[in-house]
Amino acid sequence: MSDLNDLIIRYREFTRERDWEQFHDPKSLILALVGEVGELAELFQWQPQGQEDLERNDPELLRRASEELSDILLYVLRLADVMDIALSDAANAKLTAAEERFPIQEFTGRAPDKVRGS
Amino acid sequence: MSDLNDLIIRYREFTRERDWEQFHDPKSLILALVGEVGELAELFQWQPQGQEDLERNDPELLRRASEELSDILLYVLRLADVMDIALSDAANAKLTAAEERFPIQEFTGRAPDKVRGS
Amino acid sequence: MSDLNDLIIRYREFTRERDWEQFHDPKSLILALVGEVGELAELFQWQPQGQEDLERNDPELLRRASEELSDILLYVLRLADVMDIALSDAANAKLTAAEERFPIQEFTGRAPDKVRGS
Amino acid sequence: MSDLNDLIIRYREFTRERDWEQFHDPKSLILALVGEVGELAELFQWQPQGQEDLERNDPELLRRASEELSDILLYVLRLADVMDIALSDAANAKLTAAEERFPIQEFTGRAPDKVRGS
Repeated sequence: MSDLNDLIIRYREFTRERDWEQFHDPKSLILALVGEVGELAELFQWQPQGQEDLERNDPELLRRASEELSDILLYVLRLADVMDIALSDAANAKLTAAEERFPIQEFTGRAPDKVRGS
Repeated sequence: MSDLNDLIIRYREFTRERDWEQFHDPKSLILALVGEVGELAELFQWQPQGQEDLERNDPELLRRASEELSDILLYVLRLADVMDIALSDAANAKLTAAEERFPIQEFTGRAPDKVRGS
Repeated sequence: MSDLNDLIIRYREFTRERDWEQFHDPKSLILALVGEVGELAELFQWQPQGQEDLERNDPELLRRASEELSDILLYVLRLADVMDIALSDAANAKLTAAEERFPIQEFTGRAPDKVRGS
Repeated sequence: MSDLNDLIIRYREFTRERDWEQFHDPKSLILALVGEVGELAELFQWQPQGQEDLERNDPELLRRASEELSDILLYVLRLADVMDIALSDAANAKLTAAEERFPIQEFTGRAPDKVRGS
């Protein structure tokens, strides 16, 4: 059982029923993904920093964020589907690699330095 | 059983072990997500259009795309986790809404018109 | 005199000399733009919030940000060029519209509410 | 004379009049930029590939693209302003670097290979 796979299959069927496979090349799907990421970013752009507790108590913000995260997830799954990528396995492999790349002792309380490389 | 949930729990544990929760506010996580979406976009930006069959036979492109899609998925799951969003349910609800919003008869072979609204 | 236009013309010439116009359709250029925005986002994703003074004193961060902002600007100008858009005029018109949409009295010290619409 | 600088100064004044400097830290401005890039991407996501001539004859698409490109430009300029970056010089330096990095003989008609590095 896999809810990732269930979503992939359901979205694939949705696409096929509307004859939309013709629109779902990678470049177009990535642009659609970018559109949804933009909607998520917009929700948070002016949120005050350091007040994440307030955000967690703002049901309308959470409802909108939930919708945008869903849209993003669905395009990610559709991209994996059209490229025939086993996404659940790949994501687990990525976490395994991250565990090795960021040893607990060295990185506790310290974020990777993206400016100078880490 | 849910592989989405397994990934969420595994990533949560990875974060806790490194005391990285302090970095994982929504604004920071969305910026990290944008970074990964940018890496995915970069892979495809100069790919010739209409040659998606070639892409599907380019193992290095698929390997890199698989890594970027995994990174994107993981940040989406982490965002859902810190906001306590039931993402699998939300994504299924979104698909149900899309089925109603885009009736098969009306939208077969026709993409939503994003320029003029649809 | 217009430095925006000088950059547009210089980039156009750069493109023509390499016979790269064939790659510069809007979808491809937007993906390239997204790649550069991702690199900018990555520089700031784990920067501590509320410590912008430190950022302004981090020459390596500023150097990298300057490069990414340049890349973003150049793709924006290239997009305007291939679509024959008078960008300087359009941006000034946007500012005029914003001045009317956000009257000083109503919006002093108050950001637009992107969650509930404003 | 510099229209880039004129826009920067005009946007700075717009911000100051509304006491919005407090919202314009880099992380928040990058999220706002991402929101506008998302709106641009959305306009083009389902546009048929290889029909850019049609796009150039679609006044509504061009009008919307012009607005989104303007919004993106304005956030890029605002980011340069809050980080005190001389963007026009930096962008020209980037073009000079690109001219050296991509010699005409080697790259005529050939896009950089982003998958395997170039």
